[in-house]
Amino acid sequence: MDPRDRGGRDALSAAFARTRARTEALAAPLSAEDQQLQAFADASPTKWHRAHTTWFWETFLLAPAGIAPEHPAWGVLFNSYYEAVGPRHLRPERGLLSRPSAAEIGAWRRLVDERVLEHLARVDEAQWEAVRGVVELGIAHEQQHQELLLTDILAAFARNELRPVYTDPIGADAPHPTRSPAASGWIEHAGGIARIGADGAGFAFDNEGPRHEVLLHPFALATRPVTVGEWAAFAADGGYHTPALWLSEGLAWVREHGVEAPAYTRREGEAVVVYGLHGEREAHPDEPVCHLSFYEADALATWLGGRLPPEAEGEVVATEAGAHDGRGEGALHPVPLAGAGVVGLFGSVWQWTRSSYGPYPGFRAPPGAIGEYNGKFMCNQQVLRGSSVLTPPGHARATYRNFWPAPTRFQAAGLRLARDA
Amino acid sequence: MDPRDRGGRDALSAAFARTRARTEALAAPLSAEDQQLQAFADASPTKWHRAHTTWFWETFLLAPAGIAPEHPAWGVLFNSYYEAVGPRHLRPERGLLSRPSAAEIGAWRRLVDERVLEHLARVDEAQWEAVRGVVELGIAHEQQHQELLLTDILAAFARNELRPVYTDPIGADAPHPTRSPAASGWIEHAGGIARIGADGAGFAFDNEGPRHEVLLHPFALATRPVTVGEWAAFAADGGYHTPALWLSEGLAWVREHGVEAPAYTRREGEAVVVYGLHGEREAHPDEPVCHLSFYEADALATWLGGRLPPEAEGEVVATEAGAHDGRGEGALHPVPLAGAGVVGLFGSVWQWTRSSYGPYPGFRAPPGAIGEYNGKFMCNQQVLRGSSVLTPPGHARATYRNFWPAPTRFQAAGLRLARDA
Amino acid sequence: MDPRDRGGRDALSAAFARTRARTEALAAPLSAEDQQLQAFADASPTKWHRAHTTWFWETFLLAPAGIAPEHPAWGVLFNSYYEAVGPRHLRPERGLLSRPSAAEIGAWRRLVDERVLEHLARVDEAQWEAVRGVVELGIAHEQQHQELLLTDILAAFARNELRPVYTDPIGADAPHPTRSPAASGWIEHAGGIARIGADGAGFAFDNEGPRHEVLLHPFALATRPVTVGEWAAFAADGGYHTPALWLSEGLAWVREHGVEAPAYTRREGEAVVVYGLHGEREAHPDEPVCHLSFYEADALATWLGGRLPPEAEGEVVATEAGAHDGRGEGALHPVPLAGAGVVGLFGSVWQWTRSSYGPYPGFRAPPGAIGEYNGKFMCNQQVLRGSSVLTPPGHARATYRNFWPAPTRFQAAGLRLARDA
Amino acid sequence: MDPRDRGGRDALSAAFARTRARTEALAAPLSAEDQQLQAFADASPTKWHRAHTTWFWETFLLAPAGIAPEHPAWGVLFNSYYEAVGPRHLRPERGLLSRPSAAEIGAWRRLVDERVLEHLARVDEAQWEAVRGVVELGIAHEQQHQELLLTDILAAFARNELRPVYTDPIGADAPHPTRSPAASGWIEHAGGIARIGADGAGFAFDNEGPRHEVLLHPFALATRPVTVGEWAAFAADGGYHTPALWLSEGLAWVREHGVEAPAYTRREGEAVVVYGLHGEREAHPDEPVCHLSFYEADALATWLGGRLPPEAEGEVVATEAGAHDGRGEGALHPVPLAGAGVVGLFGSVWQWTRSSYGPYPGFRAPPGAIGEYNGKFMCNQQVLRGSSVLTPPGHARATYRNFWPAPTRFQAAGLRLARDA
Repeated sequence: MDPRDRGGRDALSAAFARTRARTEALAAPLSAEDQQLQAFADASPTKWHRAHTTWFWETFLLAPAGIAPEHPAWGVLFNSYYEAVGPRHLRPERGLLSRPSAAEIGAWRRLVDERVLEHLARVDEAQWEAVRGVVELGIAHEQQHQELLLTDILAAFARNELRPVYTDPIGADAPHPTRSPAASGWIEHAGGIARIGADGAGFAFDNEGPRHEVLLHPFALATRPVTVGEWAAFAADGGYHTPALWLSEGLAWVREHGVEAPAYTRREGEAVVVYGLHGEREAHPDEPVCHLSFYEADALATWLGGRLPPEAEGEVVATEAGAHDGRGEGALHPVPLAGAGVVGLFGSVWQWTRSSYGPYPGFRAPPGAIGEYNGKFMCNQQVLRGSSVLTPPGHARATYRNFWPAPTRFQAAGLRLARDA
Repeated sequence: MDPRDRGGRDALSAAFARTRARTEALAAPLSAEDQQLQAFADASPTKWHRAHTTWFWETFLLAPAGIAPEHPAWGVLFNSYYEAVGPRHLRPERGLLSRPSAAEIGAWRRLVDERVLEHLARVDEAQWEAVRGVVELGIAHEQQHQELLLTDILAAFARNELRPVYTDPIGADAPHPTRSPAASGWIEHAGGIARIGADGAGFAFDNEGPRHEVLLHPFALATRPVTVGEWAAFAADGGYHTPALWLSEGLAWVREHGVEAPAYTRREGEAVVVYGLHGEREAHPDEPVCHLSFYEADALATWLGGRLPPEAEGEVVATEAGAHDGRGEGALHPVPLAGAGVVGLFGSVWQWTRSSYGPYPGFRAPPGAIGEYNGKFMCNQQVLRGSSVLTPPGHARATYRNFWPAPTRFQAAGLRLARDA
Repeated sequence: MDPRDRGGRDALSAAFARTRARTEALAAPLSAEDQQLQAFADASPTKWHRAHTTWFWETFLLAPAGIAPEHPAWGVLFNSYYEAVGPRHLRPERGLLSRPSAAEIGAWRRLVDERVLEHLARVDEAQWEAVRGVVELGIAHEQQHQELLLTDILAAFARNELRPVYTDPIGADAPHPTRSPAASGWIEHAGGIARIGADGAGFAFDNEGPRHEVLLHPFALATRPVTVGEWAAFAADGGYHTPALWLSEGLAWVREHGVEAPAYTRREGEAVVVYGLHGEREAHPDEPVCHLSFYEADALATWLGGRLPPEAEGEVVATEAGAHDGRGEGALHPVPLAGAGVVGLFGSVWQWTRSSYGPYPGFRAPPGAIGEYNGKFMCNQQVLRGSSVLTPPGHARATYRNFWPAPTRFQAAGLRLARDA
Repeated sequence: MDPRDRGGRDALSAAFARTRARTEALAAPLSAEDQQLQAFADASPTKWHRAHTTWFWETFLLAPAGIAPEHPAWGVLFNSYYEAVGPRHLRPERGLLSRPSAAEIGAWRRLVDERVLEHLARVDEAQWEAVRGVVELGIAHEQQHQELLLTDILAAFARNELRPVYTDPIGADAPHPTRSPAASGWIEHAGGIARIGADGAGFAFDNEGPRHEVLLHPFALATRPVTVGEWAAFAADGGYHTPALWLSEGLAWVREHGVEAPAYTRREGEAVVVYGLHGEREAHPDEPVCHLSFYEADALATWLGGRLPPEAEGEVVATEAGAHDGRGEGALHPVPLAGAGVVGLFGSVWQWTRSSYGPYPGFRAPPGAIGEYNGKFMCNQQVLRGSSVLTPPGHARATYRNFWPAPTRFQAAGLRLARDA
């Protein structure tokens, strides 16, 4: 679903309603107690995601239209990082907010949904363009929180020795025994001047533009992400204990935390056992390896004789391949990828790039609170490209720039090799 | 209620049932989400208190009788500090246990209650003495967790800007305008050899014995605890910024944390505003000051020209005064104390002593897991005497030794002055 | 001095001897006690710099030629970050090495100098090319430590309330009252494809290559670095307390450390007072502001209405300007810059760029211990271009890539504005 | 040497001069660089000890007599913990004070020595008593720093992989092969009322008084300290991994730091190897075990079937035994103890007691800066009795109360068993 692909208001209203309903559907398997959990300082409880996205609609859509917030006292709790919008509850203590309850937040969501839909039906033509921009941004913002809702609850459940299960996979035999895994190959690119970045034809975040030319040097990109089997060979070869493979900061991180495997992952003899939203399972050697830090991705790429691609290489291939969402529906973890050509660009695992997250030439952060959205994070983060099995369908695109600090492992991130051609 | 004061099994069974029911009554005003909260590493969620006390009965009463635990997998979650009984979920992560749910724990509690009562009805005479000892200990243990349940939920609620209310006071005008506060005076003691410690006539924790002689030097003890008004004068006089009043460690603690008042307390002009289980309120100048650290208690005593008493001084006075539980029912915070003689020894605020928590002469920790109960904490803790408005009725006694590290403020602790006579 | 610019061995030997002598000259004003100081974990004592550079010659030049180290037991102390060369003394504890003494290290240096010169005189033709590469690298390496020696002793002296003076400026009136400061202007660049990186014609570090094409977008670069006066106006305008100016990580850093000014700097009424290697002095409003973190440089550029340049913009201008070392000899701090055109590219303050430090297209780290040299730091560091008043003459060049983590302030770093054209 | 045991001024002046000279003699084997070392936040450089003790004389003896400090600017550097005497250089950064130099401090010491001696010669009768009190305190204070000077340089040298040697033992075969070690036995005590504390007949610190009655319960005290051989058996028996032996806080400390042996100590097969001021050596099984924390002492006592004594037990035995300094001259580490009766009360290892450090009945801290001396540390410290091989001769006595936090290991502390009789 692309929110702009519509006749007009009705389509956008429907997209809004679908997005809001999907958030609630994702929270539905979780009890009020589950929704309270915050596994670490940068994670948020399910309930908080539900409330913060609602606060966003009240603050950036309804308030400017003169519609007052329903619970003004809650503002301090559910503002996230918008410095311009006043004080905030401490981020690491979101898990200490038992009040308002999940039920109260549900009621608030329904109320705000009604108000937004009513407002969208009534807003006059002169204001429509501005309103449309906020709604598109709000939908994309809520989709981001949908993915975080899943990665955050996984991180929390992983701390419980009872190994809770979020849901069973839909279609229990989802990991398709009949498919043959995609062959590992390379797609070559001759380099030269290419255009990357959002062209303004559909919704995009501010950080995806301006569209601009880049100069690429000849390169090749792997046709599929690096697999669990390849990672297991790296680990068995002592990869985690071979200093020459690691960035200096990565080596210090491995040693400080005693890292031996990606998050939620352990080797058990020949098997690789992974804990995920469906509980614990043995991973298939052909499925993409997932929940690696940038450090691990970089070391693994080096061990495999390749390198991580800069983000422009990934974008150009994704654009030219016309690749779209190819997730295996049903399972909330990556599955072995089948098919010819480039596979798994989207809907499998996010792919770490060697690009540090920074502004494109000509980028200017928009003014106001919305301006805090992306620009202020342009330091000490790495870009990831593609999307993961946990990304809402329709959310990502070839120009999409995800970004996380190098040690991040709770995201569904893997890697795809590149090499100089 | 003294569990030993009974004809026999029926009385003990009734005491067991009452204790268990009281825990549930204390949890009743709290939603499942509230019961999930853990404000800091040494606090525990309400739900965890309910589960851990149940684990205690299964482990130390039912298991030795051959009655297997209902949920063996939960053992790792709800063992607290018994090193001898296997691995444990990380203490600072108790708030991450959304499963089992509060409802599941409630069901487990009811099941275990039935099994215990059934077992108590059937145990044969030969085993009765041993069983009785475990039951008495289990009741006292659960009562301790009842108090912690209240102090822990207060600590958690205090982090929520919405200032949640646990319950309203029973009898809304509880802080009794008609009473005249107790006059501040001294009770003199000539010193000499006295006997302190538990005499074996009723239940007592191991750390209360053996009963033994101590030599007291002549002293006087204040007839009431130090009040909010006295504390406010200390604070207004710059007490928190006068190095000469403080222990060296206390001064460093004040500076590191920017302490200006006891926990949950702030001065607002002439008023002292306190947040508590009934929400925010203005404190009465005559009510005992509460939620102080040992450091603050010591500095305040020095500023007032007195000193903290060693624990033996407090015990001797409490024993001779025949003082018993004098709490103001209805309010879950200290109230101004009326009456002649020594008041507020029990049921108002715990009273910090200058005694470091250590073993009495002849003390030996009992063997086995129960032996871990008290002896192993005899280092770097201060003894508190009396009991607080949050202590279960009947729990404390003149020989009772509470103990907490010096910086502790989440307990309902104040102080009573002493001086050399 | 460019070590390759020579007839042959004699010139290189002379360059070696000059470099080694310069290190000792820099240490000469410092007592044995001064040379012991380590102000923070990533700094090193003067003595350690003198020893580590000596260890480098023994390890990478003499040992491969079969000349055994003079003090094998010292290896563990003076290896720095070469994982491949064995265990290491803990970096944060270099200041705890009173033995060997500064005098012993001086004697060792003289001995190694002799051995190196003797070896250079005798090495046969077949090995010359390899030897030459190591010597050039060793000279450049020792020059880097010369600059660190100065920044590290400044950091240490700054912790002493006596405000020690390293040396007096040479030519006491160094801040040249007669010069008129450089006008602030812009040099425009039309963009297009440019070539950057080392071309192999002279010594360069591995991270400066391979030379490659980049695509530049039209831009303008300021003709001089940002000044103390401009910074003071930013600070007076509340720059440190205006969230919209800051990267998110920078804002957190400012708040955590209570930053109000660059390192060693404070405002005193209208004046800006700076502590440096010549002691405390009032800074001239026209001198480049120095000792800023990347965060401060970024916020200050934003406040001034510009942006930081990517490193390629700086290199292209530096190359085309033919700019060379323009330091004001005599003072060990930046001075107001005079002259037409682009000034202060070198010899004044390092200039933070918006480029994250990463590999150039086609970069491969060389194998072996020397391969650890630069590549492994390509994560979470920002590139700085130019050179500072503390950089050894002849050390830097237009292709030179310095890099430090964003919070770094002990380096003599400032900034130069850029803008889109 | 007891400073009061004298005819009058001359004896006290001589004692002053001897003490000051002894400090310099202890520093003499250390280079200026050695004297700069600070191994951890609570240690101090040799040079700082030399300067701080000199500051003490200037501040508390000369300044009140109108003799101005020679270097007023140094006050901020060399004040230690006297809050009442103004601001202070940060304690953990004493190792960053290269200026003033060791030589300058030596000159200052000589100057102050002269001024003090001159002042003592001239002070009139009316002031003599007050002056005498300050001089006695100053001597005792400087002696404390003499011991710290040794323990602090040991801690610093231990971080250097070269294993520096402070001095060789005097009389190299000092550990007396011909002596037979003291038999291990018990001295029984019937208990009852005893008097402890300083009686005012000679110099004592404020914390040693007032002399007062205590009630002792019958006990027995071991005739010698616990030995290296006993400790080795404890360690070989898995003592460090047996939770039941440990205080709760001690167990956490062992686990956090991976403790397997006292400081500077390791087992190597059957041998116990100890690093000390004479370098590395194999310990004799009969020598007292040293450099234990209170936690280790407590666990070891439990494993041996005894307990640590409260401080009164130790004092009474020491007084009745008439025990005086029995150190083995020559070696700066404990040696096997010979002789009948109670041995090693003094001059071997400090002996941890189970007493928390607190005020005696009737104790009042003296007013003024000197009042900060001991009283403000009466929290979360354990008392040690006796003295060690590093304690200046004549410094300790039966009433002496040393105190350190429970985890402290850099002091020469061991233990002596007690048991109930």
